[in-house]
Amino acid sequence: MYQEFQAMRSLKQKLTVGLCLLLVTLSFPAALFSHPVPNNSRKHVVSGKSLPKPSSDVILTNKASADSQDNNDVVFTASISTAIYSALYDGVVTYGMLKRFGDMGLGAPDRIDGEMFAVDGRFYNILADGSIYELADSEKASWATVKFFRPDRILTFDKPISCPDLYATLDTLYPTLNVMYAFRIDGAFSYMQTESTPGQSKPYIPFLELLAQATQFYNYDVKGTVVGFRFPAYMEQVNVGGYHMHFLSDDKKVGGHIKDCTMNRGRVAIDVTHKADVIVPRDKDFYESPLDGP
Amino acid sequence: MYQEFQAMRSLKQKLTVGLCLLLVTLSFPAALFSHPVPNNSRKHVVSGKSLPKPSSDVILTNKASADSQDNNDVVFTASISTAIYSALYDGVVTYGMLKRFGDMGLGAPDRIDGEMFAVDGRFYNILADGSIYELADSEKASWATVKFFRPDRILTFDKPISCPDLYATLDTLYPTLNVMYAFRIDGAFSYMQTESTPGQSKPYIPFLELLAQATQFYNYDVKGTVVGFRFPAYMEQVNVGGYHMHFLSDDKKVGGHIKDCTMNRGRVAIDVTHKADVIVPRDKDFYESPLDGP
Repeated sequence: MYQEFQAMRSLKQKLTVGLCLLLVTLSFPAALFSHPVPNNSRKHVVSGKSLPKPSSDVILTNKASADSQDNNDVVFTASISTAIYSALYDGVVTYGMLKRFGDMGLGAPDRIDGEMFAVDGRFYNILADGSIYELADSEKASWATVKFFRPDRILTFDKPISCPDLYATLDTLYPTLNVMYAFRIDGAFSYMQTESTPGQSKPYIPFLELLAQATQFYNYDVKGTVVGFRFPAYMEQVNVGGYHMHFLSDDKKVGGHIKDCTMNRGRVAIDVTHKADVIVPRDKDFYESPLDGP
Repeated sequence: MYQEFQAMRSLKQKLTVGLCLLLVTLSFPAALFSHPVPNNSRKHVVSGKSLPKPSSDVILTNKASADSQDNNDVVFTASISTAIYSALYDGVVTYGMLKRFGDMGLGAPDRIDGEMFAVDGRFYNILADGSIYELADSEKASWATVKFFRPDRILTFDKPISCPDLYATLDTLYPTLNVMYAFRIDGAFSYMQTESTPGQSKPYIPFLELLAQATQFYNYDVKGTVVGFRFPAYMEQVNVGGYHMHFLSDDKKVGGHIKDCTMNRGRVAIDVTHKADVIVPRDKDFYESPLDGP
């Protein structure tokens, strides 16, 4: 079940990625499903390995109990990952529109020119040349996943942990691996490897060629915020399966799509949701694509 | 791209099925995506075969142009198909709740005891013993897909056509195969083969064993209504990929999950949508399932 950070964009995961979802805030009634929510009903054990544990664990029961009545507890995605894999790089949704469906999230800018990072309602673009700026509402994403972030659980880690080990640890702490999770991690990182892709022009190159063009950033001893999601395997064709995380430093000087990292200490906030809304583009390129990439 | 009716529940399609979506009516803003909708931008040609054509074709432009402003133009699914394939047969959502999200659709009743068929806001159950009754709002489905049905296009067929040929013909008439379609067909059928599965008790048998228990109904010269959906391949793990159709005769005496049919004449209403909302169960069985069936 556990998927390594570094493998995020690998060919192996090509079928996993679903990007183009627009998740809608809606009047969802309470108690749609009749059964109570089990807590930690499933324990995921990584055999032969002793995983680091958080130093503290706060379960926000008020939020958790109100979850089923929360009309905004929906993860919202614009377009599908398969579209990006199929080299559909044009912007399809404005950030102004995305803000109506979430205050945190990540995505790919128009023409894949950078990496989108959103937290606390502010949307940033981390460009392949290393520059970072706040996106205008009129700019567009080619795909994005956003959510109104309200954590159900907060974990504190105070010993160094690699990001793969962090994810493996988190996997043991969820009540299930079969629903959607959003994350915000505020931490200090001894190592943070990120990447960003340069803007493209038509005719667009294939996705795998695009990845080969990505700039790699190797950052050391940096403080900042990670945002991202964990989608289950059954969503792999409409979003990114497993962990998909972006980073932005506190000083707004470095960031991007996370390839690897080591966290010295940090606060991991987890927002669980049972609802995923997807909206796909209406444009000619999407309509005509065989959606067979990469 | 074309998938035969009869193969709907075959092992080949096991990865295709996504059942557990609850699609939410929501305040979805207009013009989320910026490009105009192309019409018939993609023609799907079935080589070496001359497909029967409709005798008339009405495009409901008023509805079509209003589509992007239509807050109810969402296909809503409760739970995922993979859950059913993994033998999670307990009911998870009441029909009373489903009616808040759609007035037509199909699904699997609690304990897989029959085939659910919904049209014009009325929900029926077609049992494996051949009996049919209107479902109470308090009864539950183990999964279901529903929509508020408002057609964008109406086609009339006045010559006999097999259902596989009908689907192949429809595939040539859409503007794209990359979005979701809902159908209501009112027709006269010289042949209508349906099936229905008998109610199960715990411990539940695997899905493939369940299918082997289904009762087959062979009906001749019957008038009635078909409802169903066509989901694209990228939704195959959260709903049924390709055509998934249920039938109920006008006299409410025969129906079920369609395996094969031949339509003498009929009116095919098509409702296109770009939005799919999915809600997954909160129950212990879903949480703990490896979701690895069948």
